[in-house]
This record gives sequence, C-alpha cells and structure tokens, in this order.
Amino acid sequence: MSVSALEGYHGEILRRLRKSGAKVGSVIRLTSKSGEVFEGILIPRSEYSDPRHIVLKMRNGYNIGISLERTEKLEVIGEGEKPHFTKPSSPPIRVGLPRVAIISTGGTIASRVDYRTGAVQPALTAADLASVVPELSSIAEVDAHILFSEYSENIGPMHWKGMAEEVAKRIADGAEGVVISHGTDTLHYTAAALSFALSGLPIPVLLVGAQRSSDRPSSDAASNLTGAVALAARADMALVGVAMHQDLSDHIILAHRGTRVRKCHTSRRDAFKSINANPLASYDLKTGQIELTNGVPKRDKSRKLALRSRFDQHAYLIKFYPGFNTSMIDSAVSAGARGIVLEGTGLGHVSRQLFDSVKKALKREIPFFMTSQTIWGRVDMNVYNTGRDLLNLGVTPLEDMIAETAIVKLMWVVAQTKSASKIREMMLRSIAGEMTSRTLVEAS
Amino acid sequence: MSVSALEGYHGEILRRLRKSGAKVGSVIRLTSKSGEVFEGILIPRSEYSDPRHIVLKMRNGYNIGISLERTEKLEVIGEGEKPHFTKPSSPPIRVGLPRVAIISTGGTIASRVDYRTGAVQPALTAADLASVVPELSSIAEVDAHILFSEYSENIGPMHWKGMAEEVAKRIADGAEGVVISHGTDTLHYTAAALSFALSGLPIPVLLVGAQRSSDRPSSDAASNLTGAVALAARADMALVGVAMHQDLSDHIILAHRGTRVRKCHTSRRDAFKSINANPLASYDLKTGQIELTNGVPKRDKSRKLALRSRFDQHAYLIKFYPGFNTSMIDSAVSAGARGIVLEGTGLGHVSRQLFDSVKKALKREIPFFMTSQTIWGRVDMNVYNTGRDLLNLGVTPLEDMIAETAIVKLMWVVAQTKSASKIREMMLRSIAGEMTSRTLVEAS
Repeated sequence: MSVSALEGYHGEILRRLRKSGAKVGSVIRLTSKSGEVFEGILIPRSEYSDPRHIVLKMRNGYNIGISLERTEKLEVIGEGEKPHFTKPSSPPIRVGLPRVAIISTGGTIASRVDYRTGAVQPALTAADLASVVPELSSIAEVDAHILFSEYSENIGPMHWKGMAEEVAKRIADGAEGVVISHGTDTLHYTAAALSFALSGLPIPVLLVGAQRSSDRPSSDAASNLTGAVALAARADMALVGVAMHQDLSDHIILAHRGTRVRKCHTSRRDAFKSINANPLASYDLKTGQIELTNGVPKRDKSRKLALRSRFDQHAYLIKFYPGFNTSMIDSAVSAGARGIVLEGTGLGHVSRQLFDSVKKALKREIPFFMTSQTIWGRVDMNVYNTGRDLLNLGVTPLEDMIAETAIVKLMWVVAQTKSASKIREMMLRSIAGEMTSRTLVEAS
Repeated sequence: MSVSALEGYHGEILRRLRKSGAKVGSVIRLTSKSGEVFEGILIPRSEYSDPRHIVLKMRNGYNIGISLERTEKLEVIGEGEKPHFTKPSSPPIRVGLPRVAIISTGGTIASRVDYRTGAVQPALTAADLASVVPELSSIAEVDAHILFSEYSENIGPMHWKGMAEEVAKRIADGAEGVVISHGTDTLHYTAAALSFALSGLPIPVLLVGAQRSSDRPSSDAASNLTGAVALAARADMALVGVAMHQDLSDHIILAHRGTRVRKCHTSRRDAFKSINANPLASYDLKTGQIELTNGVPKRDKSRKLALRSRFDQHAYLIKFYPGFNTSMIDSAVSAGARGIVLEGTGLGHVSRQLFDSVKKALKREIPFFMTSQTIWGRVDMNVYNTGRDLLNLGVTPLEDMIAETAIVKLMWVVAQTKSASKIREMMLRSIAGEMTSRTLVEAS
C-alpha cells in the first residue's frame, strides 16, 4: 500500500499501521496495554500534530488520540465512511431564547483537515458550526450565515466593511447578540476595525476563532463558540469583543475588548490576551455563569448604531530596529502615506538617524504616531532626550494603545478626514476604549 | 519664587512646597501623620514619576518618596548641596576575587535626572557605577571603562562591532567575566548581535540595564548591576546573556540567553523575558546564591574565542498587517535588500496579495525568512494552505526564533556570504541557541 494512504503518520506508528493493513478511513480496533478497547475511523494527522498518537474518530463523533506506547494490539475491522458532520434539517428552536446571529467568515473554527493533503482547510458551513455544537440550541435561537470563507491573513479593509455592514443588518433584523467566526491570525485586527466602524452598538458583537480545528482532539472550536454565543446572548454589555480560552483548561472563555486584544502565541488555545486592560467578561463553561468587569458599556436597545465602515490603506505601520534603513520611511511617503505609525523601542524611541526622514515627512503634513514594540506598557516621550526630541519634531505619542490597534485606527481615521491636525486630534481621542490617558504610576 | 525651582512637582504638592518656601536642593523636614520624621534634600521629579510623592535624598544616600496624604508638616530646615555620587579615589581591591570587566555604553543604568529639565540623561561614569554599588568590591575585582555613552535606540551595527572587539580585548587581558551596561531599549538586539559575533566564548558576557535611573527610589540599577557582576564573576557558564530583574521584588536577578530575550514592557523592572526558552541562571540578591539551568555552556579557559563582528545593514525586517502595502517589499528590494525577515501572523502567514512581490524578490535571489508577530510560539507553515503556498514560493520558516533575533542574525549572515543558498543554510543552523528544531507538541 502507498505511504500517502497514511499521510501524516511517521516512524514507528507508520510501521505499525502499515503492518496491520490500515489506511486513512479504515475502521480500527485498538486494544491498550491496560485492556481498554477503542474503535473508530483512522483519521489523518496534520504536520502540526503530535506524532506519537494514532487518532480515531469514534462513533459518538469525538476524536480520540491514543499513544503508541499505550497500544497493545491494532486491528483493521472494516472500511468506514469518511467522517462528516450531520446537518440537522430543522434544528430545534426553543421559544423565548435570545436571538443570536452567527456570521461565518472562515478560519480554523470553520475548518477541517483536508484528507488529501493533511492540511487544514475552510470547509464547514455556519450550519455545520451549529450542528457540531448542538448545545447552542439551548443557549440561543441561532441564525447562522456564511458571509465569506477566507483565511484571516487575507482579510483586510474591504472585508471589515462587509462585516460591519452585515452586523448592522443583523441588528436591524432584531439580533440580540452577534457572533462572528473568524480565523485567529488577524482576528484582533478585525476586532479593532469593527470597534471603530460600529459605534453606538446596542448589543454585544463577539468575534470567535479556534486555534485547533474541530477534527482535532484538542480543538477549542466548540468551547469557544459556546462561550461566544452565551456571552452574545446573555452578557449585559454592548461593544465589540473577542471570545477565546482563558487558559489551557476547558473552563473559562474570556471576552476581550476588541481594541485591547492581541494574539500572543502561534498555537496555544490561550493565545489571545488583553493588553494594558482587563478582559470584559468571562463565561464559565461548566456552570454557565457570566461575570462582567466593572465599567463595561451596557446593552441599550435605544442606542442608535452609527456605521462608519470605510478604511483607507494609505496608512503605514513601520517597526523600528537597530540598523533600520530610513529609506523605508521615505518609500512610505513616496507611496502616498497619509499617516505613519511607528513601532518604536521602550518608552517610544527611534534612532536619531531617522530624524531627517521624519522631519521631511512631517513638513509634508504626514503625521507620525508612536507606539511601542514592547507590547505592554505606555509610551512616555518626556523621560529621555530622544523622546523629547521626537515630540519637538511633532511625533504624536499614542499612550497605551497597541500598535495593531493604532494602524487599524489610522486607516479608519484617514478615510474620514484629509486634515493632518484633525487626524492627530482623532487619533488622540479614545473612541472605542483603545487607550486611556495616563494612569497614576505607583512608585515602587 | 519661580516654578522652575520646583520642576516636576504639580498640583497640591507644588502648592504645599511653595507655601513652605522649599525649592529643589533645600533640606526638608517632613513629619508624617503617624509622627515619623524624615529629613533630606528635595530632589526634582521627572515627568515619568508618581506625582503624589515628595522625594528626598536622605543622608544615608537613599532616596525616599513620601506621599502627600501621609504628610502632616513640611518645613525647610536648610539649603543643602545638590546630591552627588562620591568617587572613591582608590577603591579597595580584595585579592583573589574573580576579575570582572565592566564596559559602560550608556543608558539609564548610567544616567541620572537632569536637574534643569527633569529628564534623564547619561551622566555616570563606569567608576561612578561601581561607587554607587560599593558592595561590588566584595564580589569581584572590578575593572570599569567607558566605551561610549549612548542612548540604546541610537546603538547599531557599528557599536556592536566596537563592543564585540572590546569584549575580546578584555578577555585577552584576563577577565573572568564581562559586564556591559547598556540602555534597555535595544539591549536585547545588542545581546543577540554579540551572541553571533563572539563564538567560542570561554567566560560569561552579561549585558545589564536599568528601567529606573539611580536617582529614583525605585531604581533597579544597583540590584541589576550587582546581579550581573556576581553572575559574570561566579556563574559557571560561557555565553552572552542579559541580567535583569525577575519580577517587581528585589529578590532575583535572572540571566536570559542573548538570542532569546525581549523587552516586553515599556517601564516595569521585570520587562525582560526569555521567549520560547528558559532563563540561563538566577542570582539571589539576599543569599548570593546562583542557580544554573541544565545544558548551559560551561566556562572553559581552553576555548578559543572567534570574533566575527561585521554586520551588513542590507537586511530588512518587515511586519505584515491587514491592509499592508506591498510597495514596502518592493522598496526594500530596490534599496538593495540582500535578505528580508517577515513578521507574519499566527503560524507564519501573510496575505496572498504579497505573493507577487515575494515571488519577484525571490527570483532576484533575495531570500525571505518567516517569523511570527505573536512573539511566543513556533512558526509552522505546513498547517494551512497559505503557509504551504509560501513554502512553495521559497520562503524559509525560522522555527521558534524571535523576529528581533532574526533580523540581527540576518545582518550578521549577509556580512559573511553573498550566496543566497548559503544565507539560507546559515539562517537555519542554530549558532547561538537562537532556535531549536521542532519540539514534540503534546496533544491536549
């Protein structure tokens, strides 16, 4: 038999599977050294998965990974169908539950492993999402639609506009909460974009993703989606947030403010962190309890949604580093930059070698904004001479705003005004909780 | 009296100080509500400091901050001299202690508040450093020199070369440990640079900085320096590291591997974190105990130091974000890039809108390397189609190397070879512990 029929398996496991005549799709019976018996369909592994486990999709729909070390006996007992998700033709709708709109845009949460390549591909429909997590029907009256199906690294300003408009439509249709499923790569950029595009929200809008696809035993797709729908249905808040795992356990789903959240790990389920701010709320997957942080804007049906969904890509984010070539700033200016966010070092610095390029651009009425590549903390350009020099040149410090939010906000701001001073004024005004003016620093 | 005589003080505190006739430099007696009495010289505050505290330099040399709320009575009892650091004309040298060379390059650790502007300026000499921390003389036979005095945001490849050569000289002179005091903004970039430039180190080389200047009550200058000198003198390791506070207490100084460390907060004393790796060692400020992590290269006087201190700035680090303008890649290529590090999203992705620019550059033999802007985790371009497409184009994933180390390494690599395939080969070979090949990911 060919190797490709066991794609994703390697080494000793591959040898054992071959010897038994197994291939992907076979029904396998595994007997563990402690005498337990597992039966299920052999599913392929991605490059990304733990190479020591054989993974079976069991009759109850769950995947299970059994380590080779624990395996006593391995038999092929039949040829199974490839696993699929059932689509309930008419999902049970309970009367009186809050109406939650799910808007699907793609990503791992709506993905499964491609059986041919072992890679993860967008595949599930919004209805599939709901069918994977049947308990959603006891939390909310879910209305699921696919807006588009895109890896999030390909999502940009035009998609943000489409999503904001779709959310506005769902709210007009009477949704009491909106959930947007989205790839995790740029989930936080989209969350920031929607935070600016949708002001005066009467209800919560929660973006949700998954770090592990729903075909994987460690998938966080179902738990994140459950948390997001519950928070969208019941949490007394009205703003854009991101709902993801708090830690590695299946216990708490946190909602982070859309303008204060960042993906801080390539693969962990708790990759999303609130930066320089507290999370908005938490959902306990075991008890269903919701806890809200003080000061979060409350639901208010009388609030009038203002949709400002245009973004202009003539905004640049440039990260400084030692040995940085100042030609990068000149190029951004030549390409028609209408504003530049610098990701400086420490409290908000760049080398004085950049001063000439910055000065030239400022003379052309192109505003510069300073954020810090440290991620955490607040820029403060009054402490050192370099900061004071940059302030004197006319660079505007963005307090504790993270760089990712700053570039999204700048794209939104330059779409609304041509005036450099108005751009500066809007960048310094907190519009969606994206920055706070200086807090008291406790001497320690 | 003029306001400038009380520069840095504001609001209620300013009014209280004015009323009592105090100015910076006055000797003040403060009586607290609980009856404690503090006497000392009034020192100015930087913009950066807690506005609720009056800060006195006491006779014992320590600064103390007393909150206005705690203050019952405030009197001027004399005019003091401005505080200064005494320079011992001939510091006591104990025979038999390890010889540690301190190389001063500037930064907060060698700074103090400018009494005129309230800003922090480089001022202390290397000898001052030692005099501020007299206990150093019981740890090592310290030999301190100023190499230059520069804010670290201005430090680049030419300074790295100078530092590497100076370290080599000190080692030839018989140093058993080297400490480099350095601004914290780019301390980690320099640490990575020296890690590549100095291979075969027989002894430890520790960079050290301070997040708060030595005039401030919360200064970490003395404790970081003590830890760095102790580790340089006694830790059984031989590589480039960074010595800084573990947390907000004055308890542990950690040594981080030079290629695995990153400044992760604008101002906290524990801003430096080992990323995707364990710290090398710890120094207990209370007990003087050193703990080493397993597997760290040991001291070995027979090792032959290889100095390769050239860096070439024709290397670019470009951070991707939604709405990114591909012209930035074209500009880097036009400006003569000999290699480009991308800071992609998630597992190592960029939008397919960049593919054409990447393809064009790769055709011109300009290698591309992928890191992740998540900071933590490992790029893995086999999981999703976007990653596989980028691999097929010829983009090289850099495993768990952080972007800051990757750009420094690329500047070092392109200084050594003109061949694109050799550049790729060197970038993928771990030279100073900067990356590990894939570790087993536990299914969870």
